[in-house]
Amino acid sequence: MSVIDDLKQALGDAVLTGTEIGERYRSDASLTGRALPKAVIRPANTDEVSTVLRICDAHGQAVVVQGGLTGLAGGANPNDDAISLSLERLVGIEEIDPLSATMTVLAGTPLEVAQHAADDAGFLLPIDLGARGSCQIGGNLATNAGGIRVIAHGVTRDNVLGVEAVLADGTILSSLSKMIKNNTGYDLRQYFIGSEGTLGVITRAVLRLKPRPAGRLTALCALDSYDQVVAFLARAQRGLPGLSAFEAMWESYFRFNCEAEGQQFFEKPPAFAVIVEQDVQGHDEEGEDFENFLGAALEDDVIDNALIAQSEKESRLFWQVREGHAMDRLLPGLINLDVSLPIGEIGRFAAECGTALAARFPQAHISFFGHVADSNLHIAFSTTGSDEHTQHAVDGIVYDIVRRYRGSISAEHGIGTLKREFLGHSRSAAELEVMRRIKNALDPKGILNPGKVI
Amino acid sequence: MSVIDDLKQALGDAVLTGTEIGERYRSDASLTGRALPKAVIRPANTDEVSTVLRICDAHGQAVVVQGGLTGLAGGANPNDDAISLSLERLVGIEEIDPLSATMTVLAGTPLEVAQHAADDAGFLLPIDLGARGSCQIGGNLATNAGGIRVIAHGVTRDNVLGVEAVLADGTILSSLSKMIKNNTGYDLRQYFIGSEGTLGVITRAVLRLKPRPAGRLTALCALDSYDQVVAFLARAQRGLPGLSAFEAMWESYFRFNCEAEGQQFFEKPPAFAVIVEQDVQGHDEEGEDFENFLGAALEDDVIDNALIAQSEKESRLFWQVREGHAMDRLLPGLINLDVSLPIGEIGRFAAECGTALAARFPQAHISFFGHVADSNLHIAFSTTGSDEHTQHAVDGIVYDIVRRYRGSISAEHGIGTLKREFLGHSRSAAELEVMRRIKNALDPKGILNPGKVI
Repeated sequence: MSVIDDLKQALGDAVLTGTEIGERYRSDASLTGRALPKAVIRPANTDEVSTVLRICDAHGQAVVVQGGLTGLAGGANPNDDAISLSLERLVGIEEIDPLSATMTVLAGTPLEVAQHAADDAGFLLPIDLGARGSCQIGGNLATNAGGIRVIAHGVTRDNVLGVEAVLADGTILSSLSKMIKNNTGYDLRQYFIGSEGTLGVITRAVLRLKPRPAGRLTALCALDSYDQVVAFLARAQRGLPGLSAFEAMWESYFRFNCEAEGQQFFEKPPAFAVIVEQDVQGHDEEGEDFENFLGAALEDDVIDNALIAQSEKESRLFWQVREGHAMDRLLPGLINLDVSLPIGEIGRFAAECGTALAARFPQAHISFFGHVADSNLHIAFSTTGSDEHTQHAVDGIVYDIVRRYRGSISAEHGIGTLKREFLGHSRSAAELEVMRRIKNALDPKGILNPGKVI
Repeated sequence: MSVIDDLKQALGDAVLTGTEIGERYRSDASLTGRALPKAVIRPANTDEVSTVLRICDAHGQAVVVQGGLTGLAGGANPNDDAISLSLERLVGIEEIDPLSATMTVLAGTPLEVAQHAADDAGFLLPIDLGARGSCQIGGNLATNAGGIRVIAHGVTRDNVLGVEAVLADGTILSSLSKMIKNNTGYDLRQYFIGSEGTLGVITRAVLRLKPRPAGRLTALCALDSYDQVVAFLARAQRGLPGLSAFEAMWESYFRFNCEAEGQQFFEKPPAFAVIVEQDVQGHDEEGEDFENFLGAALEDDVIDNALIAQSEKESRLFWQVREGHAMDRLLPGLINLDVSLPIGEIGRFAAECGTALAARFPQAHISFFGHVADSNLHIAFSTTGSDEHTQHAVDGIVYDIVRRYRGSISAEHGIGTLKREFLGHSRSAAELEVMRRIKNALDPKGILNPGKVI
């Protein structure tokens, strides 16, 4: 029997083929996927995931795991002849344990659903990113998602206590610990988190919850230079307990998005605009302390200006500019690059990249923004008539500079297919060889997401 | 030529044999090591570590890595016929980067030396544990050390940005990133952290530094029940920004150590004593807020009494009781068990363990203390005429209960040799099989710390 026949026999109408397969299974949000999968399997529980993989492994059938399809690196794009294992039916919050401050959740649950459930229970789920409405917990783990709260709570890896995953051969590996300290042999969680579906399929997780802050204080600050940004960051880390965001926008990014949103916060756009945000418990003194902190930074010429949001609405206006959704609408073929560098180097790096990109693409929009405290810089690039060759040229220019700075070609988006060619810019031959050995140890037939990462 | 001849030829007087080998190389702090290594190699740099391993791999020679020898699980004890690779000469802080807030340090550097260097640069190195004077950074990473600041800063794993390690075959794997976000393929750091020297030899690390707090506020509180401890913890996590320790002592532990130190803090020892500590910036209002927090907890009957340390000396008196060094002196053959459980279960678990141990050993000292916020409980056990059979019986009683509670038989001490027999109490057959596959992928000849962990 063919692999499809075997799957249909075992799983019935959880198997979609032919015209039952919607367009959405073609690509992640990078829109670079070319092929539809030859079947989409929608298992409803871990045992069914195990059955799917056991059958595919026996047939040597390639499997691509699909979650919310919000990735930007092509990691969830089906290759030719692949079968898609979609986790969209593996949905639900199984438990919130308020004493352990943990949530046990199925992998296909949308992040925002999990966030709301945590909120309803009086907790904060610290994992947060722009795609929260569509992305799924399993994908957040598989890509070790970053986002805007890393400064306070770490990356996804730091917020996972337990993982259940299914290996290529169908073995269910259940490490659903609720404990923060647990040194019993190799930490198997870590192998699956960030491996982009190439070592196993994550089906369930135990996530850490944090106390829900009563409120947030937000300011938008104007600064003169990257050195000031770094100095201001150091001050914020020392002076603002509960610092929960520190987002920098270079002048070109800030100006573009202020204009697009019809906002004018300062007389003229500063060299750098920084959103600084602090989680608070809601006491009056916290507001005063925040003002005093900014006042001292002004007095010491670390910042040139500061606007404190007087309402949640005002804070949303700051964030609207930072999130820059208008760019998707206004800039054709927008490319968002995602790199990381030692914090002290980001200023020089951005200047160098700007010059190099402008030399090759004089007409292009080039702007910079990022989670500076997490060593993470994003580059927005757009030019008319952009195609795959443009993308490749931009990647080459930027990643060559990243290599020179000993930075990372992917801070939070992962490698997928789109960055695979450049992985050697951030990883040595010895590192790649070890990755291959691990891949071979856990997925000897290479059926899991072949062609991705390594 | 023999492996010793090859090593001597390559490394000269870095190779100790015969009477040059001191007693200290026989065992870690568990004092359970029986054999001296047949040679001790003291490489001075990473290239020499690579040479040692290349030669040993060619000969199929077993290697045990030795750091500060402060472990309690026998992980650094030489097996028969093993060669010791001691990192004691691999010492030094190579860089402190204040902008990235990172320290690059060689593996043999004592933790306390690294802490002082961070302090001198105006930072806090968050890794901290009782053995700080003797333990080494490499050992802290290899065992994923826990300690008393985990509530604020996480375990060692959470404070490591980059690792350089040498594989069994001598390959140098350098992943010395300073970046917080770095999703470029598998996270190789994680493989070595907590693997107890069985997958590679850590030679260098990039550690995260945090802002150094200006001061600390400390209180010793009296509570009536474990439910109160959990309720107080939840309050502290919400109400004390900068909460940096939350240490619980059960009545028998607190009473014993108060008497041993000649201290009487409360009229009579409470059912539970908790040390709560908060990092502060040094403003007056912080002291008031701390008092108000404790006052509200008293008013709401969450705690029965609270003493606020009025000086660092007073705070040290609280900690002296918690650290319980007097027990080592006063209790013969003291055994310190280290387990973790879901936070809500620790109270019931401790009661059950106490009953089971007392039934078998009616004369024994049995007491409990722990980092409750990290789900970590320690058990102090002592009885006269204790030997290896006693230890084994105690382990069996406690770990059987751990298994029923789905807890961990090792929260922070690791597995080493002493807990290996019980690893199956916390890990499934599938998990152990995956660990074996990984071990085989990275150390196919099994020369690295054989007989440890798996």
